[in-house]
Amino acid sequence: MFYENAEGKRFDMEYFCNKHIPMVKQKLGAACKGLDVDQGLSGAQPGSKPPFVAMAHMLFDSVDAFQNAFGPHADYIMGDVPNYTDIQPVIQFNEVKT
Amino acid sequence: MFYENAEGKRFDMEYFCNKHIPMVKQKLGAACKGLDVDQGLSGAQPGSKPPFVAMAHMLFDSVDAFQNAFGPHADYIMGDVPNYTDIQPVIQFNEVKT
Repeated sequence: MFYENAEGKRFDMEYFCNKHIPMVKQKLGAACKGLDVDQGLSGAQPGSKPPFVAMAHMLFDSVDAFQNAFGPHADYIMGDVPNYTDIQPVIQFNEVKT
Repeated sequence: MFYENAEGKRFDMEYFCNKHIPMVKQKLGAACKGLDVDQGLSGAQPGSKPPFVAMAHMLFDSVDAFQNAFGPHADYIMGDVPNYTDIQPVIQFNEVKT
């Protein structure tokens, strides 16, 4: 999930890291092999605006493993999103190559 | 670095993983604590187009540690980019939060 750095939008990194992510980890259980959060500092030039204010990367054995773990909790997890942001996240599934 | 999934653009994942990334690792040396490559599979909906065709994440102790390691090799590394893509990468610096 990537949260774009748009004018006038809010993102509460403290709530995200200390409330949302621990709750997500607890709901997904052992199927989630990793969950990293990055906070945007800058673009390529020092002091420039980062394209994304925050990113979260979740690691699963497969897309099916994600869907089986996330599906039953999707409504609960997505219902918590307005508590930390009003940014519509960019979501994509990746294969880890290296 | 994020490579956007734009119409008519090329990205050679085999060259990227087997030639470019090993060369970058060798140039950056021990300062680079981690280097992951993701290949976009889909967007949030199965079968939809992923926003990014590929992403690479490099981990350093600090922005300064990156600049000290990357700076002397920047021209050489960037000169290899046309060998695998004609996409202009989106670059940003992040702080790892969790």
